[in-house]
Amino acid sequence: MNSVKSMMSVHPQGEPATAQALAACIEAAFACAQACDACADACAAEESTLGLRTCLRRTQDCADLCMTTGRFLSRLTDVDGNLLKTILMACRDFCSTCAMECEKHADVYAYCRMAAEACRRCEQACQDLLPRPF
Amino acid sequence: MNSVKSMMSVHPQGEPATAQALAACIEAAFACAQACDACADACAAEESTLGLRTCLRRTQDCADLCMTTGRFLSRLTDVDGNLLKTILMACRDFCSTCAMECEKHADVYAYCRMAAEACRRCEQACQDLLPRPF
Amino acid sequence: MNSVKSMMSVHPQGEPATAQALAACIEAAFACAQACDACADACAAEESTLGLRTCLRRTQDCADLCMTTGRFLSRLTDVDGNLLKTILMACRDFCSTCAMECEKHADVYAYCRMAAEACRRCEQACQDLLPRPF
Amino acid sequence: MNSVKSMMSVHPQGEPATAQALAACIEAAFACAQACDACADACAAEESTLGLRTCLRRTQDCADLCMTTGRFLSRLTDVDGNLLKTILMACRDFCSTCAMECEKHADVYAYCRMAAEACRRCEQACQDLLPRPF
Repeated sequence: MNSVKSMMSVHPQGEPATAQALAACIEAAFACAQACDACADACAAEESTLGLRTCLRRTQDCADLCMTTGRFLSRLTDVDGNLLKTILMACRDFCSTCAMECEKHADVYAYCRMAAEACRRCEQACQDLLPRPF
Repeated sequence: MNSVKSMMSVHPQGEPATAQALAACIEAAFACAQACDACADACAAEESTLGLRTCLRRTQDCADLCMTTGRFLSRLTDVDGNLLKTILMACRDFCSTCAMECEKHADVYAYCRMAAEACRRCEQACQDLLPRPF
Repeated sequence: MNSVKSMMSVHPQGEPATAQALAACIEAAFACAQACDACADACAAEESTLGLRTCLRRTQDCADLCMTTGRFLSRLTDVDGNLLKTILMACRDFCSTCAMECEKHADVYAYCRMAAEACRRCEQACQDLLPRPF
Repeated sequence: MNSVKSMMSVHPQGEPATAQALAACIEAAFACAQACDACADACAAEESTLGLRTCLRRTQDCADLCMTTGRFLSRLTDVDGNLLKTILMACRDFCSTCAMECEKHADVYAYCRMAAEACRRCEQACQDLLPRPF
């Protein structure tokens, strides 16, 4: 977290007012992407994937969008407030839906439990960043 | 287009009702991502980038999200209607905002004009796919 | 293809000597990424994925790297010849390995056959671009 | 680090022998991608970007490939040893070349210094993982 926070504090356009919440959201987004990619891969490695098919789908999509959100938030130049809101809400909704699916399997598969936790953290971090001016 | 359309027609869950519009949107999203990446790179290569700074920012973001949208739409397993709507609206808004910025420079820079056109095509393709059942 | 070729011809640093082969490789890389994403998703949708597990793995990796290669090639500013060679060889090898896996299932699954074809085309396009000065 | 390590330890095919070095490399790759994206964006925000043009280029490419490497390493199913080696060597070379460029500006721009450090850490992490059986 500290290194992301430091990186976001030395931008030519100045440190954003929300540097702390921003760094937290970037970290949460990449952590969620990693957990979702690993969960999708673990689902695919089970002998029977039938019950995990939707989980595999949701985690792939969630990983892609979290990555894109993390990259968007890592850019501070000429931020467009509407696009910021759009991507944060989209990422929050992808994480929420993915978490709900992963939670169905959390008691049986440790990776689903961990992916669900990462999704919930990212969902919350997006929500926390939403009302703030940049 | 034909190869994307063919690919989307042989899925185990059956060809989607919207295969034609879906393939068109996937093609438009990847074409827009490519044009935006090339435009961002061309902006950065100009001797003075000051007037192109916002353009560079918007095209990078637009490329990332179009790529994610193209990947999302390439998956047909257990589609979630709400997430489909969310990503299509987000992609449409990113493309629209990016197009508006690129259009400001379209008379001077051919790559901005071409990127703007690719953004408008993708914006329209997302809009066309929005009201359809999957 | 024409639009990618046009886009690569208006860069501030001038049209590259290899614009035709470059545009062909960019197109092949994105087409391969799309086909691989769709193949991975179709594999996951089969009732029994056991025989398709390796295919699902290879296509996910191949899609990611083809996307990255397509983006790299879409940038013409200050090209580093060594990195160009590195990414082209890596992409060629990922495509080749993925094609070999998909071809095992090509008689049974149309999407594996189409993904294998897209991989072979991208493998060839990378190979064609390799010896050329940029 | 702990959460990535935990996630990589619960895969159906068993915890890999190199879970510790693997988790370190995944963390380093995503941290490098984030730092490079932020550095590219900061470069673009400077009043004069002429001296930072190559830096902007290298950091964009490095961010893309580090992301792809992080995703590849997050998958443990049916690892192909040759592709693992290929992507680790490619990522190491991209990081090394990007670090060399960023280091030229490290005394003037804090973000270039931090990006260079992140590149060097990822370069080392890739190198550390290279000779190991998976």
